[in-house]
Amino acid sequence: MFSIHVDAPLFSSASVQYRRLHNLCREQRGVKCTIGHDMGRSTNSVLNLENEKVTDKGSGTVAREALGEKVTFRASEMDDLVYKERFVIRGSEVGVNNTATIEAIASLLQETSGNRARRFGWSKDVNPTPPVMRKHRLVWITFRVHIRMYKYPTRGDVVEIEHWSEPDGRIGAMLNFIIRNISTGEVIGRSTSKLVFMNLDTRKVQKISSDVCDEYLAICPKSPRLAFPEKNNQSLWKIPKLDEPADYSQLGLKPRIADIDVNKHVNNVTYYSWLLQSIPQDIVETHELEAITIHYRGECKFSDTIDSLATTELEVDSVNPFQDESTLSNLNLNSEGRHQFLHLLKFSYTGQEINRGRTIWRKIDK
Amino acid sequence: MFSIHVDAPLFSSASVQYRRLHNLCREQRGVKCTIGHDMGRSTNSVLNLENEKVTDKGSGTVAREALGEKVTFRASEMDDLVYKERFVIRGSEVGVNNTATIEAIASLLQETSGNRARRFGWSKDVNPTPPVMRKHRLVWITFRVHIRMYKYPTRGDVVEIEHWSEPDGRIGAMLNFIIRNISTGEVIGRSTSKLVFMNLDTRKVQKISSDVCDEYLAICPKSPRLAFPEKNNQSLWKIPKLDEPADYSQLGLKPRIADIDVNKHVNNVTYYSWLLQSIPQDIVETHELEAITIHYRGECKFSDTIDSLATTELEVDSVNPFQDESTLSNLNLNSEGRHQFLHLLKFSYTGQEINRGRTIWRKIDK
Repeated sequence: MFSIHVDAPLFSSASVQYRRLHNLCREQRGVKCTIGHDMGRSTNSVLNLENEKVTDKGSGTVAREALGEKVTFRASEMDDLVYKERFVIRGSEVGVNNTATIEAIASLLQETSGNRARRFGWSKDVNPTPPVMRKHRLVWITFRVHIRMYKYPTRGDVVEIEHWSEPDGRIGAMLNFIIRNISTGEVIGRSTSKLVFMNLDTRKVQKISSDVCDEYLAICPKSPRLAFPEKNNQSLWKIPKLDEPADYSQLGLKPRIADIDVNKHVNNVTYYSWLLQSIPQDIVETHELEAITIHYRGECKFSDTIDSLATTELEVDSVNPFQDESTLSNLNLNSEGRHQFLHLLKFSYTGQEINRGRTIWRKIDK
Repeated sequence: MFSIHVDAPLFSSASVQYRRLHNLCREQRGVKCTIGHDMGRSTNSVLNLENEKVTDKGSGTVAREALGEKVTFRASEMDDLVYKERFVIRGSEVGVNNTATIEAIASLLQETSGNRARRFGWSKDVNPTPPVMRKHRLVWITFRVHIRMYKYPTRGDVVEIEHWSEPDGRIGAMLNFIIRNISTGEVIGRSTSKLVFMNLDTRKVQKISSDVCDEYLAICPKSPRLAFPEKNNQSLWKIPKLDEPADYSQLGLKPRIADIDVNKHVNNVTYYSWLLQSIPQDIVETHELEAITIHYRGECKFSDTIDSLATTELEVDSVNPFQDESTLSNLNLNSEGRHQFLHLLKFSYTGQEINRGRTIWRKIDK
């Protein structure tokens, strides 16, 4: 049985500014919130996974037949603005380890987020936004994503993705995700994405006004909660720029036609593939990705050529003196089997940075 | 309303050998079949699409809400060995035209085929095969795929893929697919894949014995039927080797980690991406793929580097004197807006051929 037990105060990682805004806005909505241990909720509600068995409500049922994969379920549900959607892992989503690829996981997170937006009745645009945001010519831009997988699903597994929003200061929004394997009830992964509000006319990040704040808070659950509430968790770690020359590289990578979205830019998931491309083959064949962080800083078009660089990073605890998360991660791991890399994607011809990232790999038993 | 009306005899494209085997085996199963107009079925049953409205049976219902995308349906069904499965098109499956990419379509066809195999109760292997085939150490290898799309679905559309097997001589098997958009009932695409039986020990194609034939016929519908029954349809057209130098090329393409399957080979769908990679950008931006044929001749590993070549091919009717299919395809098309390319994928360093293909593109109104 997979379980993690760590007592950590909720929102220990949130900035003071965030807390103030959060409380302010929730109070405006008639929801008085205080931060931390006094919230009247279990402070380890996210991490006490053993007690978080998945239960079905209403018409949502899962039936798995021994032969074949007849799966009957209500595709999605919404409860207190926490949205849940289920997906069957497809053959095309499974990779060399016979488990879902990180690209498949990232795509499902995006799909869940997009479907939640559509459930709110927003437009059918590629990046749907609520009415007041549209009036102010604002869109959300993803600037940082962190995904941590405890156990990858395999073909035919049904995963449920729980998804909700939280505010993140005056310019930001935060998407939270918890991924469960329905057949076991296990939490198999968590993710958080940070978005910023960008003005479509100035193409610059913009602090939001109170009407936009109110509109955004109206789609956040009443009780504040984070997918990664642990102090100094990896989703918050700074990603320094990789010093060249890098230990490993794959040069001259090209976008594929299917990578291009309707805005004629490379879609966000392609950067995962490019980041992983420079990992040494012996690591790929003997390890699996435990966590990935991507910091988006630029955009690619179809005509671009990209270089992917990677360098082995110092051990986890020497980079980050606070060991809560690393202790957590090492519970079931041989620390000698872990590898950590710093990544840089840049344009081949200009050398300009596109984005940077960090990956952590754990040894797998085959 | 999209409709095609062409009278064409069923199995006009089938070889004599195929017909004999087919009749022989079906007779063994107590199903006496004759070929062509005397079958007691409408000879244009596949093409008379206007009359082929999708209907739901039993518990299968589709409910679409104006806001959001709550879709409730029975995921799959099987009737007379014709398998049907429904999928919601995801955001990640949609490309630059805001419609599903050909890679997404190809993945859904593979998924349908794999799920049908699992429904039969075969093993959960990557390439599931029935028991007698396993006893003989035989597997199916895809050697040719043809997909023709009349209209691409977009995000949130529910497509139903109808899928069944037919025999194809003493060494082959044929997978048939018809793709419908559930909300309109339209047939939006068709596909056929040719497989051969390969012996795992000799790694060579092998003629099948009667027990394997019987086992295979037992999973084919009682009444013979093809996804492309038209005489000389494009799925049968020979693909010559492209003469170099090619008109267009993209050199030095690399597999991504997520392209590698559990057998450590590049998955079949990646070749679609590489084939399309050398199409000129102005065609990609103003046209959409009408049809693609891929002839698989080799396998790639992660360490390989691939060159993609493409050359404009002569007009359809001068390559293929029988114009049934081209006449059919041109019903709603300005023939001047069409482009046809011959493709070749080869290893960058050895020049050895990996596979070849043909694509046909039609102009889109934006």
